[in-house]
Amino acid sequence: MPVLHHHPFCPQSRFVRLVLGEYGVPIELVEERIADRRPELLALDPAGRTPVLIDDDGTVVPGASVIMEYIDDIGGAAMGPRRLMPTDPQARVEVRRLVEWFTIKCDAEATSWLVQEKIFKRHSPQGGAPDMDAVRAARANMRHHMRYIDALAGLRRWLAGDQLTYADFAAAAHLSCADYLDDAPWSEHEAAKEWYQRIKSRPAFRSLLADRVPGMAPAPHYAEIDF
Amino acid sequence: MPVLHHHPFCPQSRFVRLVLGEYGVPIELVEERIADRRPELLALDPAGRTPVLIDDDGTVVPGASVIMEYIDDIGGAAMGPRRLMPTDPQARVEVRRLVEWFTIKCDAEATSWLVQEKIFKRHSPQGGAPDMDAVRAARANMRHHMRYIDALAGLRRWLAGDQLTYADFAAAAHLSCADYLDDAPWSEHEAAKEWYQRIKSRPAFRSLLADRVPGMAPAPHYAEIDF
Repeated sequence: MPVLHHHPFCPQSRFVRLVLGEYGVPIELVEERIADRRPELLALDPAGRTPVLIDDDGTVVPGASVIMEYIDDIGGAAMGPRRLMPTDPQARVEVRRLVEWFTIKCDAEATSWLVQEKIFKRHSPQGGAPDMDAVRAARANMRHHMRYIDALAGLRRWLAGDQLTYADFAAAAHLSCADYLDDAPWSEHEAAKEWYQRIKSRPAFRSLLADRVPGMAPAPHYAEIDF
Repeated sequence: MPVLHHHPFCPQSRFVRLVLGEYGVPIELVEERIADRRPELLALDPAGRTPVLIDDDGTVVPGASVIMEYIDDIGGAAMGPRRLMPTDPQARVEVRRLVEWFTIKCDAEATSWLVQEKIFKRHSPQGGAPDMDAVRAARANMRHHMRYIDALAGLRRWLAGDQLTYADFAAAAHLSCADYLDDAPWSEHEAAKEWYQRIKSRPAFRSLLADRVPGMAPAPHYAEIDF
């Protein structure tokens, strides 16, 4: 069984869990706290990040975008109409552009700050209270990203076009972390909300909705499909 | 002829110029300063970055990693042994891991700071002197990245293995910006230097070695193949 080194509230790890869940690939999860800089994790990926996938044949695949391409390289074609990466080059550009938007831009501007300040800091040796200036800036930026999802979801059935793709799971992974923390203002973004309800109802989402931060309850609607 | 919106000292743009040069694809260059947030550039890519490629059929491809995959999708197979992306899934993981290392990690830790503080600030409306704390931190980080290249180049002919790949051009693009600014300490990194001499001698590198920042001479060895 493939092994995924991850953290339950690492948005990039959630992206990979959603994709593997959608494809019906059972995985063994190993929880990592990257602040620990565990030598075994650094040996798998000198960048010291999560997620890292170890495939059944021992292939080590570090980083959500590299894992996404690897999964498509080895098994995408066999998924037929369920494939999460289109075959048309222009459509692939749009999927990859949006995946990068969320895994890099939304992460750097919003989700990594929210998760770092509100969740990871609780368990880090350095600890400390959340930096509320950083949290406020991240919340303001998250509103921009939700507006962007809202605009895309108002134009298209799924974020990259007519088909469900990697782009939807990348966006949903990031939003789901913000949503746990009640930092996703749904009421202002109706089209985004309707899109998120659809993707949240997929079976792949169930394990994420069961994740809990010890000692920190999720937003009341976090695990509700209709919210 | 494809059009590349770029900046001569944007490392990600340089990566794409090197790849297209290596493949012998002539391009028209349009210079952009992203701080200007030119509406025409934002219309091509709402992330407002460089590079953006516009292919002959009008396909808009934003971002170096997305461009790299697009170029391989549409023309990689036809390049035969000159293809810069391997076909084996494990080898593709290593190429993509290293491209990400340089285009994201080295960029965030070193090159984007060096270029921003020492070059882009000169021409930005806000202007100002370089933040020397940021420059010093970026220089220290660049030393780590050169040590990593040194280690890889000591083990392998090219950074990702026996073959020249995208990984070499991604790394060289970032190093070339630091080198212009004399922030690449070659004398401490012999294997990295030997590798850089080899890649710098490729014809694709010539146009980069001719780039100049107005009013700022490059390091004396910048354009020398043997340095």
